Amino acid sequence: MNSIEWRNNAVRFLDQTELPLREVYIETSDLSVLADAIIRLKVRGAPLLGIAAAYGILLGIQSAKNSSKDALEFSFEESAQRISATRPTAKNLFWAVERMRNILRLNSHENTITLFEKLESEAKAIHEEDRVMCDRIGNIGAELIPHGAKILTHCNTGALATGGIGTAFGVIVTAHRMKRAIHVYADETRQLLQGARLTMWELQNAGIPATLVTDNSAAWTIKTKKIDLIIVGADRISANGDTANKIGTYNLALLAKAHGIPFYVAAPTSTVDRSIHHGDEIVIEERAENEILNGWGRQIAPDGAHVFNPAFDVTPNELISAIITENGIVRAPYVQTISAVVNQ
Amino acid sequence: MNSIEWRNNAVRFLDQTELPLREVYIETSDLSVLADAIIRLKVRGAPLLGIAAAYGILLGIQSAKNSSKDALEFSFEESAQRISATRPTAKNLFWAVERMRNILRLNSHENTITLFEKLESEAKAIHEEDRVMCDRIGNIGAELIPHGAKILTHCNTGALATGGIGTAFGVIVTAHRMKRAIHVYADETRQLLQGARLTMWELQNAGIPATLVTDNSAAWTIKTKKIDLIIVGADRISANGDTANKIGTYNLALLAKAHGIPFYVAAPTSTVDRSIHHGDEIVIEERAENEILNGWGRQIAPDGAHVFNPAFDVTPNELISAIITENGIVRAPYVQTISAVVNQ
Repeated sequence: MNSIEWRNNAVRFLDQTELPLREVYIETSDLSVLADAIIRLKVRGAPLLGIAAAYGILLGIQSAKNSSKDALEFSFEESAQRISATRPTAKNLFWAVERMRNILRLNSHENTITLFEKLESEAKAIHEEDRVMCDRIGNIGAELIPHGAKILTHCNTGALATGGIGTAFGVIVTAHRMKRAIHVYADETRQLLQGARLTMWELQNAGIPATLVTDNSAAWTIKTKKIDLIIVGADRISANGDTANKIGTYNLALLAKAHGIPFYVAAPTSTVDRSIHHGDEIVIEERAENEILNGWGRQIAPDGAHVFNPAFDVTPNELISAIITENGIVRAPYVQTISAVVNQ
Repeated sequence: MNSIEWRNNAVRFLDQTELPLREVYIETSDLSVLADAIIRLKVRGAPLLGIAAAYGILLGIQSAKNSSKDALEFSFEESAQRISATRPTAKNLFWAVERMRNILRLNSHENTITLFEKLESEAKAIHEEDRVMCDRIGNIGAELIPHGAKILTHCNTGALATGGIGTAFGVIVTAHRMKRAIHVYADETRQLLQGARLTMWELQNAGIPATLVTDNSAAWTIKTKKIDLIIVGADRISANGDTANKIGTYNLALLAKAHGIPFYVAAPTSTVDRSIHHGDEIVIEERAENEILNGWGRQIAPDGAHVFNPAFDVTPNELISAIITENGIVRAPYVQTISAVVNQ
């Protein structure tokens, strides 16, 4: 299963809103189709958004390939803006756009055909590096998973969210392959039930024993099923380790503390935003009220009901036992330890 | 709006699964229709279940009214079993059946017609007492609600859940009538979204400013919207104050502690089960997996997915700031204080 692919000058991606019932792939050479898919969470997951952003740039500049360099640069900036406007919280979107922009700058002496080729190579490199990073995060993080561990996870952080085996899910699947006899509890994860729809699907495909729970069952599940640890991904990590991730993550971090179990974040260093010193500075996307009110084909609250619908929350660093990156596991004090792994 | 009524030897109740879109009333003189409605949560809410149980007994013994006393007693026990088998956690069901059984015992010298009349009076008294209790809980509890309070609540504890204005909701609506300028945040409350469907509907009907949030947003809402207090109802309270309530309540109690805000339980003393000394002894109903997998007209997880689906959890007494009863507000040490209000 490839959640995203670049082929024949087009992007082909799995429409994740159709899962788990149908595997529908969308192939497009139109950036606006891809941008719309990001907004609608057909393509989602912080690392995958980085890959999608890079391919999106290629789509956006494609028509300028045989035009002037000015035209190509103009369409690059237009595409970059288009992509950056889709979802404000995921660091990887902006990180990937910046990497692409850097290639453009460094090769300003080249002709447009060569420039496009170099940008295409960079996009593919972002994709391939993500695959490798997932493997490394999986191997490094698996050492934190004891034999027989009962693991609670949130949202989806697997192959659907990345270019490889996943971040938090990568750790889980690696521990499973090492025959650690794990059992995973997956939060269904409102708003869009990525835990139920996507993580349960990936767990089943991987043959990992798994149980679905509603988000509000998490505390009772930790207590009565004797959960050993919680592991989640991240959408943006500030320099001090404060972590923005899918709404409900902060809740889980507090529950981990209350029950005396570790709370781990697994994410590539590209998720770290060192321009942000504290979680308070992270912009949190608020999504439409209607997503909650009419999300499941049936109106669930009376007409005119107001909804507070944040897509993410921020978990303060002091609630995070460790952050698992492709360059190693870091613990508090995060300002120093994160800086060390990002600089590697 | 009457969520339940006894009229013309039949029970008429509002089908709460149709809310908030349709107000559908069901009238039946068949106990099995009512028992099925309780199982399917068409009728729900701990205090309302007590009232429904009493009326259910009347439905069950009605055909034996003109028969022998033995036949009436036999059908009483049959009905009591039928009702008690519907939902194991709500104390009020068993409490109401016990009150009815007591009337049967005390009047064993009477003929069947008189016996039925006395049981009918008792059922109506249970209903009326609940209405009065709600008013008392509302008035007593309102003193805990500061002016301008931002309140988080869970599930539904209003007129739909009781014979009156509600328990936790009764406190909320009383504070609103006292012009306390409150704003209520309601958890949508999985499994069956009673917060979204029922509480938001009641809040809107009462003209109380309100915002809906997903269950997993609770922690982030408490932090960013500066929630002042959490108030919930109860399905069963053990002698030491441990409280079984809708799944997610234990989660909220931990969040209240983590954020240093009070966590209140509002419930009539009939919810207290003094035969149970500790929350560990409370039987927790587990509901069907399919309720989660196919609850909203769309399958949300892959075929064969397992679900842990508890309907309730237990909040340990040390997380409860106060319990608001019709006989006063009690605080720790609950073994003593609960005993005092129950004995009044």
